[in-house]
Amino acid sequence: MGGDFGPRVTVPAAMQALASHSQLHLLLVGDPDKITPLLAKADSAVTGRLQVIPAESVIASDAKPSQAVRNSRGSSMRIALELVKEGHAQACISAGNTGALMGLAKLLLKPLDGIERPALMTVLPHQQKGKTVVLDLGANVEADSAMLVQFAIMGAVMAEDVLAIANPRVALLNIGQEETKGLDSIRDAAAILKASTEINYIGYVEGNDLLTGKTDVLVCDGFTGNVTLKTMEGVVRMFLSLLKSQGEGKKRAWWLKLLGRWIQKRLARRFGHLNPDQYNGACLLGLRGTVIKSHGAANQRAFAAAIEQAEQAVRRQVPERIAARLEAVLPKSD
Amino acid sequence: MGGDFGPRVTVPAAMQALASHSQLHLLLVGDPDKITPLLAKADSAVTGRLQVIPAESVIASDAKPSQAVRNSRGSSMRIALELVKEGHAQACISAGNTGALMGLAKLLLKPLDGIERPALMTVLPHQQKGKTVVLDLGANVEADSAMLVQFAIMGAVMAEDVLAIANPRVALLNIGQEETKGLDSIRDAAAILKASTEINYIGYVEGNDLLTGKTDVLVCDGFTGNVTLKTMEGVVRMFLSLLKSQGEGKKRAWWLKLLGRWIQKRLARRFGHLNPDQYNGACLLGLRGTVIKSHGAANQRAFAAAIEQAEQAVRRQVPERIAARLEAVLPKSD
Repeated sequence: MGGDFGPRVTVPAAMQALASHSQLHLLLVGDPDKITPLLAKADSAVTGRLQVIPAESVIASDAKPSQAVRNSRGSSMRIALELVKEGHAQACISAGNTGALMGLAKLLLKPLDGIERPALMTVLPHQQKGKTVVLDLGANVEADSAMLVQFAIMGAVMAEDVLAIANPRVALLNIGQEETKGLDSIRDAAAILKASTEINYIGYVEGNDLLTGKTDVLVCDGFTGNVTLKTMEGVVRMFLSLLKSQGEGKKRAWWLKLLGRWIQKRLARRFGHLNPDQYNGACLLGLRGTVIKSHGAANQRAFAAAIEQAEQAVRRQVPERIAARLEAVLPKSD
Repeated sequence: MGGDFGPRVTVPAAMQALASHSQLHLLLVGDPDKITPLLAKADSAVTGRLQVIPAESVIASDAKPSQAVRNSRGSSMRIALELVKEGHAQACISAGNTGALMGLAKLLLKPLDGIERPALMTVLPHQQKGKTVVLDLGANVEADSAMLVQFAIMGAVMAEDVLAIANPRVALLNIGQEETKGLDSIRDAAAILKASTEINYIGYVEGNDLLTGKTDVLVCDGFTGNVTLKTMEGVVRMFLSLLKSQGEGKKRAWWLKLLGRWIQKRLARRFGHLNPDQYNGACLLGLRGTVIKSHGAANQRAFAAAIEQAEQAVRRQVPERIAARLEAVLPKSD
């Protein structure tokens, strides 16, 4: 029910995901009056793996998270998370109120042993055709050194077990590469990570290396992560829109216009992997269950990508693997 | 003497700036043995407005700022700042150690009344063909609400008096637009700015609006500002380099290659105003004098841009105007 468009986007995205993943089953939690009409044209091969779970209310996207959590009984978001808690579903995907989702997820699914607070993680494509795990993207506006270390461990598990990067490089986002730079929390986390034999810690990385592939895991507090990711998205969107508008000059000959468009298409294909739509879906890591937060503004393709991310996290047993790694690492670093 | 290239870049940049600004006089502070040979070929019309001031030592770019400040006597950076302090120069431009420059500048030039700590400011071009003043870019890793308010005032003066934007819009960088979002320091600063009649405060702006022209002045702490700006630079550089490499396929016909290059040139021209080289030069605001920090990696064109920014700040009397505005605003907000 959530996000800027609600079922108009999430229902077609659900059918798209079901069509491309034959093992996938989806429970659509929300207002049946709004969801059911959108299923009318669906193929029975798809609707057979889809069930509508009615919910009385929806948490508003602008509701204050603490209030939303208090008044959440009967809401689509809470019911979806309860389905995960009770084992009826293995993951919850939402485009709704981020703060409420994090609060409710923490309340209902509980953090893993050794995790103080869950973190929002996403996987970004980089220039070397590989991928970088980035966290926290905004689950926690502040993070002390212990939390940064926990984020680093969770990120390393994601990189190793989901992206299949052997011995993934882990870096802290900072404002310089010298050890003396930055905030106390970052310097203290660096000291702990440096001493750990379980984490391949490579030092500080600066904002300009976000997309260069210098590291496999990039760790920061949620305020910095959110600002950084949104800055990147803003610049990428601006370039893509400039590329698009570039083909629309008035004075050029038709054959020049055609050629121009052809070259721009090639450029857009090359840049397209950085389009925010393609990596939509931030994973709330550190809980006893999988929770994926989609952009509120996600379109059908982007929301389908979020569903696919959930499917992958479940298949790769991300929570279980993080729990196992935490057990191996944390006692030693105490 | 500073930066990645030293006099090899700064001396030709100085001559370039002198050639385009006939009122400009420059003092080159550093090792005469390294500077003088680079002046051999210069036009006398230029060298007549240029003087070499010898300095015994250079502060290393990787020196710890506090130590560098303690051992700064006789260094080119300190002598340059002393020339400003004593009125022999009106501005100091350096590509050297940022921390040392800020420390020494604060020590020698002193903050203006009402300013706790100076801030690094730059002017970014935005999509609406206008400009945005962004600060702090890293002078202070943390900023409380009082500092953020001081940054807002300094930014508003820059926008109004240097960029000639009437009643400039001032925003705080945050991770959401709702009033409840973000860090305490930001929320407290928002309350003070909202109550001020002297500042046209428009609320929070997110990272994705850095280049959209939604605000004329964007205020944040130095850690966030540094990460944000570097993220933007990294993405812009990546796009520009992809655009460049795009013309180098092997299989295409020569006429297609030529046409491709022509279109890419047009694209680069359109994107080029975001090239970090073109807006190099962060201004250290809040001091009784003008200090410009150039990128360490600046090339000749970029360093010349930093010199021109200093020339403009002096001509527009930025420190004097900030002092006047502070006097008008700060007593009221106390």
